[in-house]
Amino acid sequence: MPPSPIRKLVPFADAAKKRGTKVYHLNIGQPDIETPQVILDAVRHTDMKVLEYSPSAGFESYRKKLAEYYVRNGIDVTPANIIVTTGGSEAIMFAIMSCLDPGDEMIIPEPFYANYNGFSTSSGVKVVPIPSGIETGFALPPISDFEKAITPRTKAIMICNPNNPTGYLYSAEELNVLKDICLKYDLFLFSDEAYREFCYDGRKHISALSIPGLENNAILLDTISKRYSACGGRIGAFVARNREVIDAAMKFAQARLSPPTFAQILGEAAVDLPADYFDEVHAEYTSRRDLLIKRLNAMEGVTCPNPGGAFYAIAALPVDDSERFCQWLLESFSHEGATVMMAPAAGFYATPGKGRNEVRLAYVLNTEAINKAMDCLEAALHEYNKITAHRPVSEQSHA
Amino acid sequence: MPPSPIRKLVPFADAAKKRGTKVYHLNIGQPDIETPQVILDAVRHTDMKVLEYSPSAGFESYRKKLAEYYVRNGIDVTPANIIVTTGGSEAIMFAIMSCLDPGDEMIIPEPFYANYNGFSTSSGVKVVPIPSGIETGFALPPISDFEKAITPRTKAIMICNPNNPTGYLYSAEELNVLKDICLKYDLFLFSDEAYREFCYDGRKHISALSIPGLENNAILLDTISKRYSACGGRIGAFVARNREVIDAAMKFAQARLSPPTFAQILGEAAVDLPADYFDEVHAEYTSRRDLLIKRLNAMEGVTCPNPGGAFYAIAALPVDDSERFCQWLLESFSHEGATVMMAPAAGFYATPGKGRNEVRLAYVLNTEAINKAMDCLEAALHEYNKITAHRPVSEQSHA
Repeated sequence: MPPSPIRKLVPFADAAKKRGTKVYHLNIGQPDIETPQVILDAVRHTDMKVLEYSPSAGFESYRKKLAEYYVRNGIDVTPANIIVTTGGSEAIMFAIMSCLDPGDEMIIPEPFYANYNGFSTSSGVKVVPIPSGIETGFALPPISDFEKAITPRTKAIMICNPNNPTGYLYSAEELNVLKDICLKYDLFLFSDEAYREFCYDGRKHISALSIPGLENNAILLDTISKRYSACGGRIGAFVARNREVIDAAMKFAQARLSPPTFAQILGEAAVDLPADYFDEVHAEYTSRRDLLIKRLNAMEGVTCPNPGGAFYAIAALPVDDSERFCQWLLESFSHEGATVMMAPAAGFYATPGKGRNEVRLAYVLNTEAINKAMDCLEAALHEYNKITAHRPVSEQSHA
Repeated sequence: MPPSPIRKLVPFADAAKKRGTKVYHLNIGQPDIETPQVILDAVRHTDMKVLEYSPSAGFESYRKKLAEYYVRNGIDVTPANIIVTTGGSEAIMFAIMSCLDPGDEMIIPEPFYANYNGFSTSSGVKVVPIPSGIETGFALPPISDFEKAITPRTKAIMICNPNNPTGYLYSAEELNVLKDICLKYDLFLFSDEAYREFCYDGRKHISALSIPGLENNAILLDTISKRYSACGGRIGAFVARNREVIDAAMKFAQARLSPPTFAQILGEAAVDLPADYFDEVHAEYTSRRDLLIKRLNAMEGVTCPNPGGAFYAIAALPVDDSERFCQWLLESFSHEGATVMMAPAAGFYATPGKGRNEVRLAYVLNTEAINKAMDCLEAALHEYNKITAHRPVSEQSHA
């Protein structure tokens, strides 16, 4: 697996902090929203005598609760359709290992969550990217692009909805296009819906598993990490109505024995959070997004489509190489004692050379911090372009 | 992956319980020993605001504590040699994925922990079994057997020490034989040491990673599941002094983001348990083992070597097909309202037909329960052999 461009920046961020520079972290999807204390209390109040293995598919009581949650969200499943996983990561692995053989191909609109590539590679599966672009706000690529990419080895299409890293929320029309392709070519649709609750502007999330006719093809990959700000719990879910697929995934679930017990208890308590729990979270993310997008688009030469969901945005910057720029931000820049860390977007593209002038920003800080981070970015772009304007072209085009 | 012979019996056990028959579970490695309350309290007393991702290698504080634990056990490592994993299962996966390519081969003395096979298969790695037998008490196979099995694709030897399913504890001489083979043929030695603390008769455990000269070849696969009766925590460790191996495994660790937070807190507290914590546990398992082995060997036609470690034993029974016998025990037999569930040993052999008259017994119940379970087994063997003696031979040899 290639090293992540985000990780390559970590030593530079550490060095900046050592120098006393404050670093605004817009580079990772670790929300700052507090985990609801009532669900942490569920773990604190356990009175177990033996910390036993749970069933390989997860506790029956938790799977019942999860099924209730899905049904409330328009996804018609029973506990038998659910395998509790160790984070969304394991759900992704189970999908790839259960539905594809080594040498098979999986189509993913790029940019995409970089670890899809890692999990595919380690299973011998080939990722075939098809481009979505900032100029269309990262909308679903046209059906002809999918059809051009399909070969006899194509077994699945993977989407993330709402999308990490773009924040794009797929429409009913786009999901129907995917449905038609999947049915026509007999493909699985892996739908990573980690950010289901984070949809803005009054738009509603549509799960792939709620699309009539796609019951046998759609596989829902889920996690409680973002939903309840519970990333460290490592609890996700693999959800499928296709019995053969569930049976295949269960073999992998049994081999690793069981998902973690404590965070299943937390996840079970979370299903009973009051319905208005998300209202406050939602309002907070909406104001962060609105501020971030407004500030970015007000900067000279910066373009950032308005994301419909999740808590990410991809912006095109007036720089030749965003990885170099992000490193420079940490290494050589500060504004009022602070700088900003962002994820160079090239790491989310499988096609070499793509996204080189783009960055991903995660709006996981409060509006005050976002404002200050944007002050840094604005000042930095001004300063950086003064420096690079005087450099020979040869130096500009290589990191 | 083939279905586990233990899992195939579960519906029969459930049916027996529904009929009101008590089932003594000697079939699985879920200890009944209470998890120390003080380490559960560490989880109960957390005051976190956000349940964040931990670092991909695990919390630094926990890795420091773990290194202390290993050094106390004669294993000279630093936190940089340790990646905290999601159970021992993930440590096994990391070892196979980091050190072997698809098509490579791994030699394992059989019988062995069945999931080694599952993890190898899903990575495209071929398991090459070499036989250890009940007649030698499951001692390490002779060096000539290893050498016969080595091909240009052989990259690793896997052992479990003390062994699941045999309970065999490898001697210093045997480990030196393995060392010589690994150095001569440049092989990794994967050493699953989940049962390190469970060694009997005054014998001391020797870690593969403590063998001078094997620093670059030995990879220690570990878990707190059995050590502290914390199976549901899902915390293990991948430990290597070979820097390249650690770097390769870190890629897989980063892809799955982080191990579970809560059980790392529990694991960290466990390292500070008083040194005498294991004394009581040890005394309990010793008396269980002594009773179990004595009762088994006192039964007509039963042979069971005295295991030096772990909490398993493999016994040869006077039956033609232990899977059929174990099913019959659950389906058709009871003694004073009870029966016993054991694991047919064929599932631990990769060579078809091996271990057909053997069962694995896990002594995870107290001595009173073990005595009653052995009463059941003794009566059952008597009755079963009366029935099968009258069956035509053709029926006896097929399940």
